Amino acid sequence: MLIATPQSQHFADPLALQSGASIRAYDLSFETYGTLNADKTNAVLVCHALNASHHVAGVYAGQEKSEGWWDSMIGPGKSLDTDQFFVIGVNNLGSCFGSTGPMHANPHTGAVYGADFPVLTVEDWVNTQARLMDVLGIGKLAAVMGGSLGGMQALSWTLQYPERIAHAVVIASAPNLTAENIAFNEVARRAITTDPDFNGGNFYAQDGQPETKPKRGLRIARMIGHITYLSDDVMNEKFGRSLKDSAKLKFSTQDAEFQIESYLRYQGDKFAEYFDANTYLLITRALDYFDPAGACDGNLSQAFQRARAKFLLVSFTTDWRFSPKRSREIVKALMDNRLDVTYAEIDAPHGHDAFLLDDPRYLNVVSSYFNNIYKSLGASS
Amino acid sequence: MLIATPQSQHFADPLALQSGASIRAYDLSFETYGTLNADKTNAVLVCHALNASHHVAGVYAGQEKSEGWWDSMIGPGKSLDTDQFFVIGVNNLGSCFGSTGPMHANPHTGAVYGADFPVLTVEDWVNTQARLMDVLGIGKLAAVMGGSLGGMQALSWTLQYPERIAHAVVIASAPNLTAENIAFNEVARRAITTDPDFNGGNFYAQDGQPETKPKRGLRIARMIGHITYLSDDVMNEKFGRSLKDSAKLKFSTQDAEFQIESYLRYQGDKFAEYFDANTYLLITRALDYFDPAGACDGNLSQAFQRARAKFLLVSFTTDWRFSPKRSREIVKALMDNRLDVTYAEIDAPHGHDAFLLDDPRYLNVVSSYFNNIYKSLGASS
Repeated sequence: MLIATPQSQHFADPLALQSGASIRAYDLSFETYGTLNADKTNAVLVCHALNASHHVAGVYAGQEKSEGWWDSMIGPGKSLDTDQFFVIGVNNLGSCFGSTGPMHANPHTGAVYGADFPVLTVEDWVNTQARLMDVLGIGKLAAVMGGSLGGMQALSWTLQYPERIAHAVVIASAPNLTAENIAFNEVARRAITTDPDFNGGNFYAQDGQPETKPKRGLRIARMIGHITYLSDDVMNEKFGRSLKDSAKLKFSTQDAEFQIESYLRYQGDKFAEYFDANTYLLITRALDYFDPAGACDGNLSQAFQRARAKFLLVSFTTDWRFSPKRSREIVKALMDNRLDVTYAEIDAPHGHDAFLLDDPRYLNVVSSYFNNIYKSLGASS
Repeated sequence: MLIATPQSQHFADPLALQSGASIRAYDLSFETYGTLNADKTNAVLVCHALNASHHVAGVYAGQEKSEGWWDSMIGPGKSLDTDQFFVIGVNNLGSCFGSTGPMHANPHTGAVYGADFPVLTVEDWVNTQARLMDVLGIGKLAAVMGGSLGGMQALSWTLQYPERIAHAVVIASAPNLTAENIAFNEVARRAITTDPDFNGGNFYAQDGQPETKPKRGLRIARMIGHITYLSDDVMNEKFGRSLKDSAKLKFSTQDAEFQIESYLRYQGDKFAEYFDANTYLLITRALDYFDPAGACDGNLSQAFQRARAKFLLVSFTTDWRFSPKRSREIVKALMDNRLDVTYAEIDAPHGHDAFLLDDPRYLNVVSSYFNNIYKSLGASS
């Protein structure tokens, strides 16, 4: 079993952000798996989505249940084979798993950032990741890979650092969010910001005041998220109209009657314990903002004129949050630029969540793609 | 213009409810339009969905902007022609537009019901509606008509009172809710019940305490509802990624950046002003519970063995909350019982909301159906 060891890197220089603000010294948590080859050509950066972290694969020593969030995909002999590639997972700036975020002290003032943490974009994250690659001595990545919001980061790498990325592996992603996607994010954010315990974002323990975590809002946010990550069909198959306790209705509007209700409540409770409310706002906002075609009057083909990478895109038929239609828009834009694109549309019932599951057809597509990358490394070394 | 006049009917006898509880004396608000013919054969009952009322058509005297919620469908010369039919709109028991509900005093105790208001089902509503028909001297309805939850009431009429309904007009409805539908209802309910101002459902002014309306929760509930009433396509067309104020981002996680955000906030604010939180819980629960096939091991065809009515069903292609697939399940069950069914699937872009809009193909289908009913009345009178 792959044993993961979290690391942290301090960055002492301020970073200019897309908003016009800048962030002073900050830390990024990351993990690496496998070995960087002598030519430093086999590095693959894995970007995370909303609630994940730098812990993408393996387990922590002595904690056998601590599998990384993409452990089905990444490890020795897996689709992204850590015997062949040097894989890097990084926790995004502003997240809540070790990298500097709203719960940390602003080095300038000494006070906890809270609501003052700067608003970030996908482009900002890519810049922080590029700095980490500098520290690791990696000039050009064999690939950047991600699902959902992680896929947006992979896309952005091809536009911001076209010479530093050979392949982009973009799974269950989109060129931007639809109005419906923004709407779901907005409801989740409003649930958090209108929770009296949110306190304008300044809810951390400070100056002798205890923390007042806005758990009500986080629960609602997570419940909404969960519904949109699953397909209608898989929800019907998994829960249907099954009752929680028995075949007898309780006739209550406040108790959970149906299994789907207890499932969502459980997921909401769990999430509210470990996730940070300000991070939720920041990350959903970065999702909303991402729109590389925006600077080109909505012309995505024009936006990708800068890209030089080769691409693998994967989508899932029942994903209604990041539907195949959206991946096909990217494929079209890439082909308009005569870029090298492989596209797989997987007929999976699990909705957006499919990108985290172990459908063999999906894993095989990714495996083949990385095998070819690995062979090309051998040819050039 | 049709002038509507709200009326109220008191029911002094207790009503046994499906839950096993019963409700004592209660009032129903209703309106009627048109004239009941001498044979009393031209009465049409119109049932409402979540947030509507007995005010289905026309305006109130001196208030020209007070159109009923289905005024595009119902009135003189309209699809349901009040020159031909005697139309009755009734506010459901437990709602908040005049009929007895959680905000009223329990006649038994004198205290406001609040959370003690009994949990109701579609079947209970149909029983209260049948009692109102008794009072109005209507033995058999020419039709019962409704959209969404209103359609469920029309379906239930054909099962509970098969001899008292000639036609059921069931629009954008379903034989029960899917797990996803229940899930959305549950998130909305949790937003309300975890709002500190909900106070377990007892938030009304009482004993010198002022009202503490759980507006935060109601806003979230309404925002979720709105997203699911619209289609992804119509949201993109109407709002897309347009910014609220200008072409310049504010880089804020708490201010509304996109037009879709301000729209949802506005809808949420408006709803929280006029709707009752306990009513929201009751009505969404009745939606969850409705499942006529449940008593027949899920066999909908068996459930409809009792029905004697003729049916018109209409669904809308982009309605993902009550999709055409669900209407087709009903059509199949009716045809299995050799019942007379007309089914129209309207290719409309507006999602579930289409049932309230004035698509001419939709209005024509309903118009033709009622014309035929009217002709058959003439033939038998």
